[in-house]
Amino acid sequence: MRHTDSPDPKLLANIRVVLARTSHPGNIGAAARALKTMGLAQLCLVDPGIFPNSQADAMASGAGDVLANARVCATLAEALDDTTLALGVSARRRDIVAEVLTPPEAAARLLGEAGTAPVALVFGNETNGLTNEELSLCQALVTIPANPQYSSLNLAAAVQVLAYEIRQMWLGGASWPQPDIDAASGAELENFYVHLETTLAELDFLNPGSPGKLMLKLRRLFSRTRLAREEVNILRGILTAAQTGRERRQE
Amino acid sequence: MRHTDSPDPKLLANIRVVLARTSHPGNIGAAARALKTMGLAQLCLVDPGIFPNSQADAMASGAGDVLANARVCATLAEALDDTTLALGVSARRRDIVAEVLTPPEAAARLLGEAGTAPVALVFGNETNGLTNEELSLCQALVTIPANPQYSSLNLAAAVQVLAYEIRQMWLGGASWPQPDIDAASGAELENFYVHLETTLAELDFLNPGSPGKLMLKLRRLFSRTRLAREEVNILRGILTAAQTGRERRQE
Repeated sequence: MRHTDSPDPKLLANIRVVLARTSHPGNIGAAARALKTMGLAQLCLVDPGIFPNSQADAMASGAGDVLANARVCATLAEALDDTTLALGVSARRRDIVAEVLTPPEAAARLLGEAGTAPVALVFGNETNGLTNEELSLCQALVTIPANPQYSSLNLAAAVQVLAYEIRQMWLGGASWPQPDIDAASGAELENFYVHLETTLAELDFLNPGSPGKLMLKLRRLFSRTRLAREEVNILRGILTAAQTGRERRQE
Repeated sequence: MRHTDSPDPKLLANIRVVLARTSHPGNIGAAARALKTMGLAQLCLVDPGIFPNSQADAMASGAGDVLANARVCATLAEALDDTTLALGVSARRRDIVAEVLTPPEAAARLLGEAGTAPVALVFGNETNGLTNEELSLCQALVTIPANPQYSSLNLAAAVQVLAYEIRQMWLGGASWPQPDIDAASGAELENFYVHLETTLAELDFLNPGSPGKLMLKLRRLFSRTRLAREEVNILRGILTAAQTGRERRQE
């Protein structure tokens, strides 16, 4: 039996499941149930289509508490505010340069870091998945290996599979790879991006027609890289120096 | 990448998923979708509450073909007619003496035997699970390790988890333990049980008040044992000898 080790409940408590722009409230309820069966309880809803809702309650079955305690956020950035690691669940994307993890690899990564800080698993809208903007907030993708002829898992079913993998790995009590850096939190990264965008605008480096395009590329680059807190401080120091240099030239 | 081995599709084609007495047609549709996403297509419905049904169609999404090809049976015995291995998915049961497998163990067992004969994974009713009679037709149980405080997975979610484990193991292409016996099929076992019950009745060994109780215990014993075809023939030979002896004594 693998249950005897009594693994640390704090690890599961630090794993947040984020559902972004879910259309069908029944899926939110079913996801809450899926989480609770695997001992997860942190549910965060980003701009849900319809919530709260009686269909969500019905599908949650005995997991009404998870639903009642769900946090509702306006943006994914807000949902990831205090996390140091966010993995986006997605079908294979050829258009995005990102590390792609299998479910067991994702479970190990989340559990490895959950001892240190909150971490998140992010699911997109039922029809369209995660947007490029949402993916740009994730450090890596998770893909469930599925039938190439029909790979469309129901949202709550995908939540169930990943929650299951997390619980099995947690029960297994392996020594997961510990994070080797003091990673910056979502909020620290957001502040850095704001600083970066402001500075680039001041330097007239942003295309005023579409400032978002360049920022999205830069976000992707830094998300993938996984910035340490110290590195963010260094980068912001450079930005401040650039701003000051510009002001000085203008005097 | 684990996809390069191109594992044998025949193995998945020989794995049948049996849903016994499902109450909610939506769950049947959702189960069909879960199967198709993992490359499974053999769905068998035993005495479904409501089927066919528009809600089942809606929940099946792109897996309408799996639903349309689903076989409907009156009894579980009929559904397992040609199978040599049936695993019943169940919460842990203290009242049943049975081998209990984890999902990966179940996947390995099913894949190991699917090269030789059809095998089945059996799911019970949403509220009550599998009956003792239904469990007596299964050679072992499969339990999904879940939160002890709330272990009630939605039916389609449980189907998704097990189908996922089967696909992952199939993709892994490991050498699964091959069956070491020429196992009797479900139909051969049923014929044996009929023969056994008839003989015991003739010998006045069955309690006429509740003949089923003893038969259930005997079924459980033999199911667990996994009878080889040759052993069934030997046992039936003994039964025939007992019947003939009795007739002789009566002459």
